[in-house]
Amino acid sequence: MSKYARSAINKLDAYVPGEQPGPGEKIIKLNTNENPYPPAPEVLKLISHFPPDLLRKYSQPEATTFRRAAGKVFKIDPDMILAGNGSDELLSIIVRTFVDPGQFIAYPTPTYSLYPVLAKMQEARIVEVPFDADFNLPKGLEKTKAKVTFIANPNAPSGTFIDPAIIAAFAKKVKGVVVIDEAYVDFAQANCLDLVRKLPNVIVLRTLSKSYSLAGLRFGFALASKPLLGDMLKVKDSYNCDAVSIAVAAEAVKDQKYLKQNVEKIRQQRTWLTEQLRLIGFIVLGSQANFIWATIDKPSAKSIYLALKQSGILVRYFDKPGLKNGLRISIGRPEENQKLVAAIKRIITS
Amino acid sequence: MSKYARSAINKLDAYVPGEQPGPGEKIIKLNTNENPYPPAPEVLKLISHFPPDLLRKYSQPEATTFRRAAGKVFKIDPDMILAGNGSDELLSIIVRTFVDPGQFIAYPTPTYSLYPVLAKMQEARIVEVPFDADFNLPKGLEKTKAKVTFIANPNAPSGTFIDPAIIAAFAKKVKGVVVIDEAYVDFAQANCLDLVRKLPNVIVLRTLSKSYSLAGLRFGFALASKPLLGDMLKVKDSYNCDAVSIAVAAEAVKDQKYLKQNVEKIRQQRTWLTEQLRLIGFIVLGSQANFIWATIDKPSAKSIYLALKQSGILVRYFDKPGLKNGLRISIGRPEENQKLVAAIKRIITS
Repeated sequence: MSKYARSAINKLDAYVPGEQPGPGEKIIKLNTNENPYPPAPEVLKLISHFPPDLLRKYSQPEATTFRRAAGKVFKIDPDMILAGNGSDELLSIIVRTFVDPGQFIAYPTPTYSLYPVLAKMQEARIVEVPFDADFNLPKGLEKTKAKVTFIANPNAPSGTFIDPAIIAAFAKKVKGVVVIDEAYVDFAQANCLDLVRKLPNVIVLRTLSKSYSLAGLRFGFALASKPLLGDMLKVKDSYNCDAVSIAVAAEAVKDQKYLKQNVEKIRQQRTWLTEQLRLIGFIVLGSQANFIWATIDKPSAKSIYLALKQSGILVRYFDKPGLKNGLRISIGRPEENQKLVAAIKRIITS
Repeated sequence: MSKYARSAINKLDAYVPGEQPGPGEKIIKLNTNENPYPPAPEVLKLISHFPPDLLRKYSQPEATTFRRAAGKVFKIDPDMILAGNGSDELLSIIVRTFVDPGQFIAYPTPTYSLYPVLAKMQEARIVEVPFDADFNLPKGLEKTKAKVTFIANPNAPSGTFIDPAIIAAFAKKVKGVVVIDEAYVDFAQANCLDLVRKLPNVIVLRTLSKSYSLAGLRFGFALASKPLLGDMLKVKDSYNCDAVSIAVAAEAVKDQKYLKQNVEKIRQQRTWLTEQLRLIGFIVLGSQANFIWATIDKPSAKSIYLALKQSGILVRYFDKPGLKNGLRISIGRPEENQKLVAAIKRIITS
């Protein structure tokens, strides 16, 4: 800490990303919700023949190649799409575009722990409205007077899903901007994309990190009415996306068939892993994402997390309000999930 | 514009990047200070064999591979390096880390036009102190009480250079953070890197966009004391740099020999182009960057800019306080510069 920083920054506890093992470490990595399958074949082909001239010159300020491709795939005007350096950047842009210091940012809890970090940076006031035990959209969220409300759907780390009709009704009632963070939506049964065509205050966020197997690329996009995106465009860096990610993201989004194949494999494994862990004695929420939320009292989730780590399997352990003593486990390949279950059985019976 | 944005954003005129021709357009592009030579051979080799697993998994939150490589090259502790998604992202992080709304941001003018845009987003108060005709560091800059002072060195779009000893004396006198934006410094006769080892309030910014021929990659880095970087680390997105750019930037920075070869070619052409334009009747400032600043009264710089554009040559035209009716011309390959001079001669005599 230096003596130069804003007091809001001095007071801030930074967001803590999941553990990243060093290069060469042989581990089964089920802690940061990456996709266990490689990116689409056309993506890899494109990178292996990437034109040097696109590296040399500045990238497209508005990621036009991607927006045109995505516009076709999602049947939406490309001008209702804004690309970002991961949806984390888009979340940061949203806060800086729509929320003045002292104004309110609201979200149901527990949820993605970046929301309060971004709010504190902007010195916004935070209204956290707890979910009920079934993770329904809490009634109190309508009354917050928030300039921006975040709804992660599917939610993290619960994996639960709120019906788009309920979110639509909510967005019609409130006066502020409603951000539906759909990072995991390709693994769910429905989505809220249609709302951005009908409601002027809705922003849907998507990312290529999960369903497209491109977490390392850092690419996300916002879908919203043109006036909202026009405001955000003023706040984003001119060249916020690089030439490789724009070209790769355009290729990736075109191959919806490959995406759906991988999603289907992950859903099947999600069902299998949920059943297995319930048989062992975990309470596992029904998940619509590429991870599950599992709690257990004895032995403690923490001791299981630590023992798994010892045996080379990383999962994410949470212990905070609404997330008591539980594990968030990303769905891996079948053999990884089998090894996980076998390891947990060994740990519990030892 | 929507009714949802902060008033600071509604009032803001966004930064306008230089024109980007569409794909396939055959033009000589001397308007955004890109390097006319391709990136280093090892960079291209790395991309053509890029490991798919690095795309699938999240990238290094602190760009460790790059920081280690850069630490060796610049003989500096890797913990005194912070990587960013272009130095534009680092400039934005600096403002959000060190400047509260209502506090002062200062810089000499004319200079990089992004500084006031970032200041206005943060609702900081701006103190602009004009350069004299020789672009010396203005005396008044010491008295601004700024939390952050930006000094682009070499300056853009003048191309002029301030002696590091003068900047060091300035940084010792002022109480705020001094940011030395060295985007173009590899084309200059000296640099301020040494100051970050001695002064706790100095941040040096570098980019791979110019001297490394990687504008499309979006990669920059800050060099500063650990406490300053520790503050900035809290504000940056967790995974702000992607896996491709981290790996490529590490390779690029290792090949200083290739960089110096290209820099030398560009310097020779800078000398040649400066002489040629002076012979034609332009006033051309002595440049330490990869561009020159050239003014002329008759015919007007604007008419020359427009006529060049018609004949397929893009340069950047400025007409604002301190930048009256002039052209900023990026140094291209010898044949591009020759075509430029020939075209200007044709325009002037027609």
